[in-house]
Amino acid sequence: MSLLVTGSIGIDTIKTPHGVSENCLGGSAIYFSMAASFFSPVRFVGVVGGDCPFDLANVFAGRNVDLTGLEIRKNSKTFRWVGTYSENMDNRTTDYIELNVLAEQPPVVPKEFSDSKFVFLANTAPGLQLKLLSQIEEPLFVAADTMDFWIEGHPEELKELIRKIDCLIINEDEARLLSGEHNLIKAAEKILTIGTQVIVIKKGESGSLLCCANETFVLPAFPADDVKDPTGAGDSFAGAFMGHLAQTGKTDFESLKQAVAFGTVAASFTIADFSLAGLTSINKADIDARFTALRKLTRF
Amino acid sequence: MSLLVTGSIGIDTIKTPHGVSENCLGGSAIYFSMAASFFSPVRFVGVVGGDCPFDLANVFAGRNVDLTGLEIRKNSKTFRWVGTYSENMDNRTTDYIELNVLAEQPPVVPKEFSDSKFVFLANTAPGLQLKLLSQIEEPLFVAADTMDFWIEGHPEELKELIRKIDCLIINEDEARLLSGEHNLIKAAEKILTIGTQVIVIKKGESGSLLCCANETFVLPAFPADDVKDPTGAGDSFAGAFMGHLAQTGKTDFESLKQAVAFGTVAASFTIADFSLAGLTSINKADIDARFTALRKLTRF
Repeated sequence: MSLLVTGSIGIDTIKTPHGVSENCLGGSAIYFSMAASFFSPVRFVGVVGGDCPFDLANVFAGRNVDLTGLEIRKNSKTFRWVGTYSENMDNRTTDYIELNVLAEQPPVVPKEFSDSKFVFLANTAPGLQLKLLSQIEEPLFVAADTMDFWIEGHPEELKELIRKIDCLIINEDEARLLSGEHNLIKAAEKILTIGTQVIVIKKGESGSLLCCANETFVLPAFPADDVKDPTGAGDSFAGAFMGHLAQTGKTDFESLKQAVAFGTVAASFTIADFSLAGLTSINKADIDARFTALRKLTRF
Repeated sequence: MSLLVTGSIGIDTIKTPHGVSENCLGGSAIYFSMAASFFSPVRFVGVVGGDCPFDLANVFAGRNVDLTGLEIRKNSKTFRWVGTYSENMDNRTTDYIELNVLAEQPPVVPKEFSDSKFVFLANTAPGLQLKLLSQIEEPLFVAADTMDFWIEGHPEELKELIRKIDCLIINEDEARLLSGEHNLIKAAEKILTIGTQVIVIKKGESGSLLCCANETFVLPAFPADDVKDPTGAGDSFAGAFMGHLAQTGKTDFESLKQAVAFGTVAASFTIADFSLAGLTSINKADIDARFTALRKLTRF
């Protein structure tokens, strides 16, 4: 079934103990689409400035990513981010950020995308996420991400968003902040009472947690021995997660569990190299092989 | 098959955000034996002073724990520990410690225990662990724990110990310190080269990692929503792990994986209450039910 993503496109400069990647392509919609495209066609909605050095048609060549929703604003500038990861890559700091086009009006969802059934609203102001969602006629399954800035600064708008979506995909710090609970099981339970049916909590190298009203699933991260650049891991996770659901058209708990496992696998490929290189150097067979390996690694 | 443990017996005072437990029974051999006794008879080797207020025969009444190896030194004092857990129980500090009898000669392994087949050497000086191990004639499977103090201060003795055992069970900080590798997969690989066949790395609420030369197993922690006192979680893990192996008499990788799952389950019961209350309030059926639940929670 159709899968639409709205999110950022960025020019990233990333410093990790393994090296520096200057002015490389990044952003939530980019990582999401690259990971999702292994599973399902993707409808892409995002905006860049006239300075964007990347030809996205070229970036996604050979992949089923429909760029009708890509807007290029000639007189604006593209989102930029410079970040540094700590020695052990447990922490990262933002050295520099320019919102640029992200601080302007959001892109419009093209009319031909308005019948999308699976929708992912990457992190941005909850008000904008609601505005983007309102342009989809009858979505079947909507997932969204958010971050500390919106949880702290716009809690009511965020709750309105959470009541309108089916699934929230956030990291453990965000889950704790949103719920006021340190224990993640309690945090998940509390967030479900706001109104979403499904919550996925990403815990980085500690894996992830999937909760619905009466069911829970816990999965470790894929045991990677080679982590070069964690940037985009969360968005790749979301991309494979939603891509698998859109591919099968199913959202029952068994399908959600498999989607979490595919998300885990996609993230493990992303972090193995800088920028998109971890994802562009593999094919669907590599993903399926690692999915099978993850199952073997965790089964007793 | 026979299972022997050597370790500490302590008088603990524990402060957590959920309350204070003063002068309660603790120590590695105690938690280990309580957890292991659900699976297998236990041969207990440890020493207390004349001041010990606990009657261990009473503590282990109705459980198959042979206290022939318990030595009571009338003129010595029992090991004491006072610790405080942080608000989120992510960290603990030792407020006060009295080694007392633990700083003296170790207990002797009774002659009738020298034919033990499964052996756990809880954390103490590697030289003492070697001395205790030398009193066992033909052990089948020996596991040991250690800590930062011995890794930093007695690396050569510790390596000699690691070469003589079959399995090292340590936490993630210890694995990183011992290997000099932050990545736990690399850390495990490096530690295996020292000479042990099996390594289990405990990651607290992030679960655990089991590695042999060519096989790996990763398991999340049981998703607990009620953590009162993490003291003894690691020793309970080791107790159920070794108890399961001794019960089945098998140490192939499938058995080791199941042992890690039983260890995870025992730890989850331990942390749900203060001191031993989490383990003494359950029976083997509760453990088996949670083992099955853990399998369901992690299977996709």
